[in-house]
Amino acid sequence: MNYSIVFYVIGWILNLEAAFMVPPCLVALIYREKSGFSFAAAILLCLLPGLFLIRKKPSNRIFFLREGFATTALSWIVMSCMGALPFLFSGCISNPVDALFETVSGFTTTGASILPDVEALPRCLLFWRSFTHWIGGMGVLVFLLILLPMTGGSHMNLMKAESPGPSVSRLVPKVQSTAKILYLIYIVMTVAEILLLLAGGMPLFDSLTLSFGTAGTGGFGIKNDSVAGYSVYSQLVITVFMILFGINFNVYFLLLIRKFRQASANEEVRSYLLIILAAILVIAWDIRGLFGNGWQALQQSAFQVASIITTTGYSTTNFNSWPQTSRTILVMLMFTGACAGSTGGGIKVSRFLILLKTARKELLQLLHPHSIKKIKIDGKAVEHEVVRSTNVFMVVYLLVFAFSILLISVDNLDLITNFTAVAATLNNIGPGLEIVGPTGNFSFFSDFSTLVLTFDMLAGRLELFPLLLLFVPGTWKKF
Amino acid sequence: MNYSIVFYVIGWILNLEAAFMVPPCLVALIYREKSGFSFAAAILLCLLPGLFLIRKKPSNRIFFLREGFATTALSWIVMSCMGALPFLFSGCISNPVDALFETVSGFTTTGASILPDVEALPRCLLFWRSFTHWIGGMGVLVFLLILLPMTGGSHMNLMKAESPGPSVSRLVPKVQSTAKILYLIYIVMTVAEILLLLAGGMPLFDSLTLSFGTAGTGGFGIKNDSVAGYSVYSQLVITVFMILFGINFNVYFLLLIRKFRQASANEEVRSYLLIILAAILVIAWDIRGLFGNGWQALQQSAFQVASIITTTGYSTTNFNSWPQTSRTILVMLMFTGACAGSTGGGIKVSRFLILLKTARKELLQLLHPHSIKKIKIDGKAVEHEVVRSTNVFMVVYLLVFAFSILLISVDNLDLITNFTAVAATLNNIGPGLEIVGPTGNFSFFSDFSTLVLTFDMLAGRLELFPLLLLFVPGTWKKF
Repeated sequence: MNYSIVFYVIGWILNLEAAFMVPPCLVALIYREKSGFSFAAAILLCLLPGLFLIRKKPSNRIFFLREGFATTALSWIVMSCMGALPFLFSGCISNPVDALFETVSGFTTTGASILPDVEALPRCLLFWRSFTHWIGGMGVLVFLLILLPMTGGSHMNLMKAESPGPSVSRLVPKVQSTAKILYLIYIVMTVAEILLLLAGGMPLFDSLTLSFGTAGTGGFGIKNDSVAGYSVYSQLVITVFMILFGINFNVYFLLLIRKFRQASANEEVRSYLLIILAAILVIAWDIRGLFGNGWQALQQSAFQVASIITTTGYSTTNFNSWPQTSRTILVMLMFTGACAGSTGGGIKVSRFLILLKTARKELLQLLHPHSIKKIKIDGKAVEHEVVRSTNVFMVVYLLVFAFSILLISVDNLDLITNFTAVAATLNNIGPGLEIVGPTGNFSFFSDFSTLVLTFDMLAGRLELFPLLLLFVPGTWKKF
Repeated sequence: MNYSIVFYVIGWILNLEAAFMVPPCLVALIYREKSGFSFAAAILLCLLPGLFLIRKKPSNRIFFLREGFATTALSWIVMSCMGALPFLFSGCISNPVDALFETVSGFTTTGASILPDVEALPRCLLFWRSFTHWIGGMGVLVFLLILLPMTGGSHMNLMKAESPGPSVSRLVPKVQSTAKILYLIYIVMTVAEILLLLAGGMPLFDSLTLSFGTAGTGGFGIKNDSVAGYSVYSQLVITVFMILFGINFNVYFLLLIRKFRQASANEEVRSYLLIILAAILVIAWDIRGLFGNGWQALQQSAFQVASIITTTGYSTTNFNSWPQTSRTILVMLMFTGACAGSTGGGIKVSRFLILLKTARKELLQLLHPHSIKKIKIDGKAVEHEVVRSTNVFMVVYLLVFAFSILLISVDNLDLITNFTAVAATLNNIGPGLEIVGPTGNFSFFSDFSTLVLTFDMLAGRLELFPLLLLFVPGTWKKF
């Protein structure tokens, strides 16, 4: 392990976080909230170690996969710990474990909360909660790559660890430029949503925070009833943007450089949209009796489907009381997740595509044992390496999933609560069913279980391996 | 598809089933039950097409994998349909769908029942229910292999389809001899259990039926409270034999030929016993408050753990009301399953071993990207083919699982019932939690859902592929 480069990057992350805490400071100034001082204190506590760690550049600037994974995992942990300070300093959350849960939930764009009453929070903290979604959505290390020129192929190993999906592709040969393009698209789309929400008469503060939550597919609301109180227009805008932020950003890049045919041929995005359409229609049919008219059922169904499959987690209604078929479909969408290369979490549509095609191939191979076929996605053969790592991902995913359920079962809550709590955190969604349903929250769990679920959120956001690697002794060997 | 050989084998299966119906006929004679006539009628209906189909030997006696899989799947379906006739003819089950469910549940050694009151059944039908467990446990086609000499490597393709586990190994070079040895061990162990139960003062009829259920890891009881009413001694005997029948039969063969060291080194069996031990201890600790003393908690825990992990499904107590940690562990054991090459169902310990080792290898590979390592089991490298098919098995398993839950959700029962109902049928266990818990039954489901669960039982017993292959058009192409 090349420790000097790891510490150097973590130093930069701390300084970056200090910078990210300036906007909530300004919010506190505008609304004259004394919680602003908590942010000022947190900024100082970030800069102190941050400036110390970056004081000299490491001589060896080469990143191997191991350093990439470890740096990413450690950065996210450090970032979360420091990000929790304003909650503690302001006294809004008194339990450090809960404050950490809330912050990790923000950065990992989960959106699960331990707060029973978010409306009691000062505006600057509400802003920070939502802003962490936006920062975590595209990834803070990806952001750092724009600022920090690094050697050779080293960038890629950082990006691999933080970008969701079975394989990472560069849009352009230079990783730094790729990061720039990604953030540009991200910012433009966020601004577009803010403007559209403002146009519908939503206050600026609400438009900003809700857009941050949509962009990062996070889901923290600033009202106790999430998005239920806003106009149908606002809900529709959010529905559309949730779906848009769940699409692979490569497709937007293709649109940008006018490769329309290639963009529209993307198999993952097509499957993603097809799943959404099918789920919306089936659920709308299933819940038609609960609403005044079919249009309303369709709108509610669309909102929940978009919110769950993109792992955003906003809600407009208590889907916990919907009929079983709808509930079952929503639970399944929790696992499907959005597209690779989007800000959404979950297992990702592309992984399911690879798995489905592998299964189909295997079935046909039983009929023709001697045929040799490679599975293809977007017309290109999928490398054996990717298929294998997808399979392994699923296995490790299931293990972490099962083990988490077992660990939190000590709280003796019901099985659906436990099952969906783990599903909602590991897939970075937010709400589950029963106690952790859309009208509930995660405050019922013991500190131990809260920590387990905090781990799950980080493991889900970083797609398991970076975090698990921290537990392998070999990772820490000096060389 | 070589149709002539497929029909020929199915003919034999029908005749064999007629023979298997003779013992329940005798039971009816002894107890002077008029339901015996239902068996007589069913025997005739089996022999009629059976004798017709075997009247001439097919010229082409070569079995490819495709014929092996299709024959096995079709045999099991035909066998189940004919086996349901006595239930219908006697009027004990009036709904054909329910009768089919009950029979499939018998042959697949699931042990899930739609009967709210089994004690109302005549003895000959109780005997038949338990006897189907015994027949299905080791496999009827394996039995046929003893009687029916076939060409070349063809046997193997039949055995592959019916034997549980990721890979099938011959004990001795000749498949016919392997089948003979397996059945010999099976019979000796069954007789041993019968004798031990008789020694404890259990009536002969009960000893026979309960031993059949244990041997096949089936779980149909002849009392409404399953095994709860029997003495602690009987429950202990059954506990031990459930665990024994969940062990890979290869190990017994190794013991038989005095290769003790090789037998005791079997990794799968060691893991299997370790999981059982750990689960028993944790659950006993968790439920210690529910019982008078620690010994009783330990005994109850041991019985339930053995019953669930071997997918037998007998019960002595309503574990549905146990604390959450115990319930969660039991649900996980539902998926673990017994050893490959045993009569137990589930995913199988060896598959989990392969998956765990693959995951571990992948994690280490991140640290040392250029190392090439093969995973080993019992000191031998696992073939790439086996690893791949294990991965694919998991994927298809999850797909069938999710799809089944979705389909039966139309009945609008609660999610835990649906989840554990599919888990209990696909893993051939029997009882689940909530409505389908140990004191409940499967009669609450609609005909549609009953059929879905019937499919799951067959898919689980034949390990998915043989049954799924029936839906691939290419399977039916003549050649």
